Amino acid sequence: MSRPRVSIVGGSGYGGGETLRLLLDHPNVEVAQVTSRSQAGVFIHSVHPNLRGRTKLAFIRPEELEPCDVLFLCLPHGEASKQIDRYAGLAARVIDLSADFRLRSPEDYRSWYGEPHPAPQWLDRFVYGLPELHRERMRGAKLASGVGCNATAVNLALLPLARAGLIKSVVADLKVGSSEAGNAVSPSSHHPERAGAVRAYAPTGHRHQAEVIQELAREHPFELHLSITAVEMVRGVQCTAHVMPTRAVEEKELWSIYRGAYRAEPFVRIVKDKVGLYRYPEPKILAGTNWCDVGFERDERTGRIVVISAIDNLMKGAAGSAVQCMNLMCGFEETAGLSFPGLHPI
Amino acid sequence: MSRPRVSIVGGSGYGGGETLRLLLDHPNVEVAQVTSRSQAGVFIHSVHPNLRGRTKLAFIRPEELEPCDVLFLCLPHGEASKQIDRYAGLAARVIDLSADFRLRSPEDYRSWYGEPHPAPQWLDRFVYGLPELHRERMRGAKLASGVGCNATAVNLALLPLARAGLIKSVVADLKVGSSEAGNAVSPSSHHPERAGAVRAYAPTGHRHQAEVIQELAREHPFELHLSITAVEMVRGVQCTAHVMPTRAVEEKELWSIYRGAYRAEPFVRIVKDKVGLYRYPEPKILAGTNWCDVGFERDERTGRIVVISAIDNLMKGAAGSAVQCMNLMCGFEETAGLSFPGLHPI
Amino acid sequence: MSRPRVSIVGGSGYGGGETLRLLLDHPNVEVAQVTSRSQAGVFIHSVHPNLRGRTKLAFIRPEELEPCDVLFLCLPHGEASKQIDRYAGLAARVIDLSADFRLRSPEDYRSWYGEPHPAPQWLDRFVYGLPELHRERMRGAKLASGVGCNATAVNLALLPLARAGLIKSVVADLKVGSSEAGNAVSPSSHHPERAGAVRAYAPTGHRHQAEVIQELAREHPFELHLSITAVEMVRGVQCTAHVMPTRAVEEKELWSIYRGAYRAEPFVRIVKDKVGLYRYPEPKILAGTNWCDVGFERDERTGRIVVISAIDNLMKGAAGSAVQCMNLMCGFEETAGLSFPGLHPI
Amino acid sequence: MSRPRVSIVGGSGYGGGETLRLLLDHPNVEVAQVTSRSQAGVFIHSVHPNLRGRTKLAFIRPEELEPCDVLFLCLPHGEASKQIDRYAGLAARVIDLSADFRLRSPEDYRSWYGEPHPAPQWLDRFVYGLPELHRERMRGAKLASGVGCNATAVNLALLPLARAGLIKSVVADLKVGSSEAGNAVSPSSHHPERAGAVRAYAPTGHRHQAEVIQELAREHPFELHLSITAVEMVRGVQCTAHVMPTRAVEEKELWSIYRGAYRAEPFVRIVKDKVGLYRYPEPKILAGTNWCDVGFERDERTGRIVVISAIDNLMKGAAGSAVQCMNLMCGFEETAGLSFPGLHPI
Repeated sequence: MSRPRVSIVGGSGYGGGETLRLLLDHPNVEVAQVTSRSQAGVFIHSVHPNLRGRTKLAFIRPEELEPCDVLFLCLPHGEASKQIDRYAGLAARVIDLSADFRLRSPEDYRSWYGEPHPAPQWLDRFVYGLPELHRERMRGAKLASGVGCNATAVNLALLPLARAGLIKSVVADLKVGSSEAGNAVSPSSHHPERAGAVRAYAPTGHRHQAEVIQELAREHPFELHLSITAVEMVRGVQCTAHVMPTRAVEEKELWSIYRGAYRAEPFVRIVKDKVGLYRYPEPKILAGTNWCDVGFERDERTGRIVVISAIDNLMKGAAGSAVQCMNLMCGFEETAGLSFPGLHPI
Repeated sequence: MSRPRVSIVGGSGYGGGETLRLLLDHPNVEVAQVTSRSQAGVFIHSVHPNLRGRTKLAFIRPEELEPCDVLFLCLPHGEASKQIDRYAGLAARVIDLSADFRLRSPEDYRSWYGEPHPAPQWLDRFVYGLPELHRERMRGAKLASGVGCNATAVNLALLPLARAGLIKSVVADLKVGSSEAGNAVSPSSHHPERAGAVRAYAPTGHRHQAEVIQELAREHPFELHLSITAVEMVRGVQCTAHVMPTRAVEEKELWSIYRGAYRAEPFVRIVKDKVGLYRYPEPKILAGTNWCDVGFERDERTGRIVVISAIDNLMKGAAGSAVQCMNLMCGFEETAGLSFPGLHPI
Repeated sequence: MSRPRVSIVGGSGYGGGETLRLLLDHPNVEVAQVTSRSQAGVFIHSVHPNLRGRTKLAFIRPEELEPCDVLFLCLPHGEASKQIDRYAGLAARVIDLSADFRLRSPEDYRSWYGEPHPAPQWLDRFVYGLPELHRERMRGAKLASGVGCNATAVNLALLPLARAGLIKSVVADLKVGSSEAGNAVSPSSHHPERAGAVRAYAPTGHRHQAEVIQELAREHPFELHLSITAVEMVRGVQCTAHVMPTRAVEEKELWSIYRGAYRAEPFVRIVKDKVGLYRYPEPKILAGTNWCDVGFERDERTGRIVVISAIDNLMKGAAGSAVQCMNLMCGFEETAGLSFPGLHPI
Repeated sequence: MSRPRVSIVGGSGYGGGETLRLLLDHPNVEVAQVTSRSQAGVFIHSVHPNLRGRTKLAFIRPEELEPCDVLFLCLPHGEASKQIDRYAGLAARVIDLSADFRLRSPEDYRSWYGEPHPAPQWLDRFVYGLPELHRERMRGAKLASGVGCNATAVNLALLPLARAGLIKSVVADLKVGSSEAGNAVSPSSHHPERAGAVRAYAPTGHRHQAEVIQELAREHPFELHLSITAVEMVRGVQCTAHVMPTRAVEEKELWSIYRGAYRAEPFVRIVKDKVGLYRYPEPKILAGTNWCDVGFERDERTGRIVVISAIDNLMKGAAGSAVQCMNLMCGFEETAGLSFPGLHPI
């Protein structure tokens, strides 16, 4: 029996390339087609040089896309929602990595994205693509959104505390790499300017906040503050979440809360050691992996809880979570195709 | 008439080397001696290769130190206070870059450094070495402490708001480079491990908090939270200070407060632009300079004020402020020897 | 039937850690024991944080090593040869990643390592561990050496031209990352000094030359010059081999020679494109992979042939080639456990 | 008496910005105007953020350029030669940093730049802008070209050996930073692709070779081979020149030759130490300086001489040498405005 056929729309970007890397090595599926308007006709390995010798496929034009079993949409923001009817008609299962279908409420979308959603009737048909939040609904789902990479680092840092009702307010201070801005050139990504930078990229107003509010703060209300700083790194997000708790919490209770929340999670590790160089989550060793590492430390003088999380923005923050969703949607082993453990040193 | 003679105790470290670089090019002084226990007899340029061709001095043993006009102490923590009587007897003016004489209160010292101060009777004779806080007292002072680099980034970010009584609480999230840890090798500074890191270095408990409390929060009480993350950078500190204000503050008022506070400061620039790649303070362009750049952004959704500051930890955060203090103490032009504007690109 | 049991001696270094990463995911073997004198009793993931959640093994003392099927020796230079009798008695197959058994001739060893070999009688029992050179002898071999990472980059760059008798002389100019020097701290690897460096690390005299002479230049004599420069990179070797040919060679012939030599090689890719950002071998996209990428360009003005090769020094230059050797020695699929394609971007 | 007025044409690029930084702090001149077609009307510090607080000038349109005493042309290749009549009419002294007037021979220009020179009659009126080669002619000259940054690293590495007739052939293998390609964005300078790269940028055919041939190899013939590799660095060129000598040369003679050639040079340092971390020239500590550091090592096995040189491409390789030329042309102190010693660590 042939394996399910999977295609990618928008495969020349970083999210598309990473999705393709995972699918080419996935034990349960076969890659059928990869589209790219700008690179149609070009060998995929010319754009994603790591796939040289791994695939002989070339990019096709979007119009050449054929029906398949699972379709990954890796388009720039605002593109997937314009043609969602077409895409949903081509495949039994659609996973959209963009921001288009992450928010359930058209009002939220308008508030954060500054314009009405072009296909609001589809919004509540998508499951938000973070298995740690929606595993049961994801099993057998037909439509899944992607996740914001920054939102994912925050959501997984805070999930256990939010569910325990322990967050009064939080300042999430994120440090991110350059791949987060995608593969389009701009003066801000010009190497002499971006190299070695510690750039206040989004002190306020970043849209990924909407995903944290929707997924955590609606049910367990807390005040959310978020800022993003770009640092010297290509892949990776590190979140330092400064939590002001609703009541005093001892470290022992924190251990219990986090262990309870993540004990059975295949891709969340609690990283909190007393010795060694990697005592807390460090994004650099996560490159290429689907791990989200989470650790915490209590401020003895003030009671603040500092929660640190780290992910690879292109993996757990994008393609990795998307493939994890596919595994759940299709009934595959949840960890299939996601076993790369990461490198040390790197 | 000969120029004042200046000597450096502990000149083989990064702070000592940077102090020496500044003094060698200073128009008003002459460098007399530079001590180093470990490198005695070695040419200075073997340790500080940037000074090759600039000085023919070699390090001398500490015992060979002669009387001079100004003495800079650049020793590891805890060393200066053990011999402060000797040093104060050798020079009319002493500037200690270490943490030994930054705190005025022996109780504070014991609380943050975990042991009694070895020479508490000297504590209130030192002026805290940040001219923006103590310019008038510094003029003609005989003894000045250094400043904590992280404390300086926080103090200059918050000073205007603190004086205006606008800070209810603040989370200071600092991003720092590897030179902050000094020149002693350790597994944590081994290049394959430290390169590209985003390492939770001090989530809680960093000692520099004591300097912010002493200099700002005692007089204008607010709740202080501070965390430090090490990023890929050699020199530099960037502080993202998330301020929860005591009342709503509009951006226009913030401009007025910051301009009022820093208009006449020779080394503080307000950096807050609407266009360009350097719209907010960026440490990388400050390497080698005495600038502290400060900017701010108001969160329209929550009222939070995000203040961003950046310095070169070895300059404004150490040697640069120390030389600025010397200039004030000796009656030189305050900016003498500190005019390097920094490089772009870098 | 149980899978062959594999153990590692000296597992706390970078080569040992990378070997372990590969073996833990290898489909045909089971990891039995990992020794480390300095880390005995410590969980492996404390030293190799990428393996957290992947193995619960702790390092054991060297004395606790038990018989096994395959033994990897990942010790510092000079250690394996002192106890080779013991190790060879413990396992049917031994692969030594160090430099101890790479040279066939005791005279060569003495000439390049400056002292007599401690166990010269073992030298000709080892097969040099580069499958591209000794595949047939490796099948079924009992003892294999490792390879010098720099030697491997040079050997695979030059092999086709050497066999064609086309090299008169060559200047191999290598650019290498910091992991090449291992995990022992030293002032030269201190991050503030090593970061961003372009350091003339070995302008002349590097020992890996001996492996190029032995493997290529003895049979196809040419003049070899080699220099190594350390650049900002953790993993990776790039070799720019400037070949002065014995006769004029056109590009078309070069294509034919390289394609002929490497067509059937599972881990060598010819990288020579006219467009794209990765037209020639680039080490950064090879991190974690067993690829050796090779490309070339002919200088139209002088006839010089510039051959460029790139590898991950810890993989194709160490652990990857060692596992490839194990696969051949044990009759496994040659590519087993070595399929990670690398990341882009990174 | 007023100081000479200096203007810059094309001041928004990296070369123009660096020239401006030097001129603003130069003791003998006053900056009059800075043109930029793309940035006219914009404050200079918006483009060169290091100059914030240092100049209040804004860019003007090229048409607004007024007569001045010294004019620096910092335009892209091919622009200066189109309007050289106009520029030469505006100022008594013109220094062109571009490649337009570096070659004396129209035939050379056509050979390396692929088209006829647009103003060949001007070529022999320019002095090639490297004082170490043409100091006497530069004194009082009216027109000076700039220098190729890569050519400068090679020329200063080889000058002493070439004059001594000791070079039979040389392979110059250069490692360069990203600022060498200028401030125009392109996919090749996109941070996720360029970061950490070791990219074969110009294996053959680089135009700067023409400057080495003209300045050294015509008079002292030798065979020149040159390749350029881009590494992770913003500023800097390091040249590893592998020299095959015309006869055997001992290290003692090399010392004598290099000391003799460079003893009196204000900006060339011989760097060849037996201890320390900076035993050979290292570009990173030269950022912002006008130093060219040169060292050498003899290969005991083959007689090859490895000469290592390092510069800041924007300084000694561009703006620094240009200002040094201005100093000579105008009769200023040769080192005026060029005293920054560089930073350590960095």
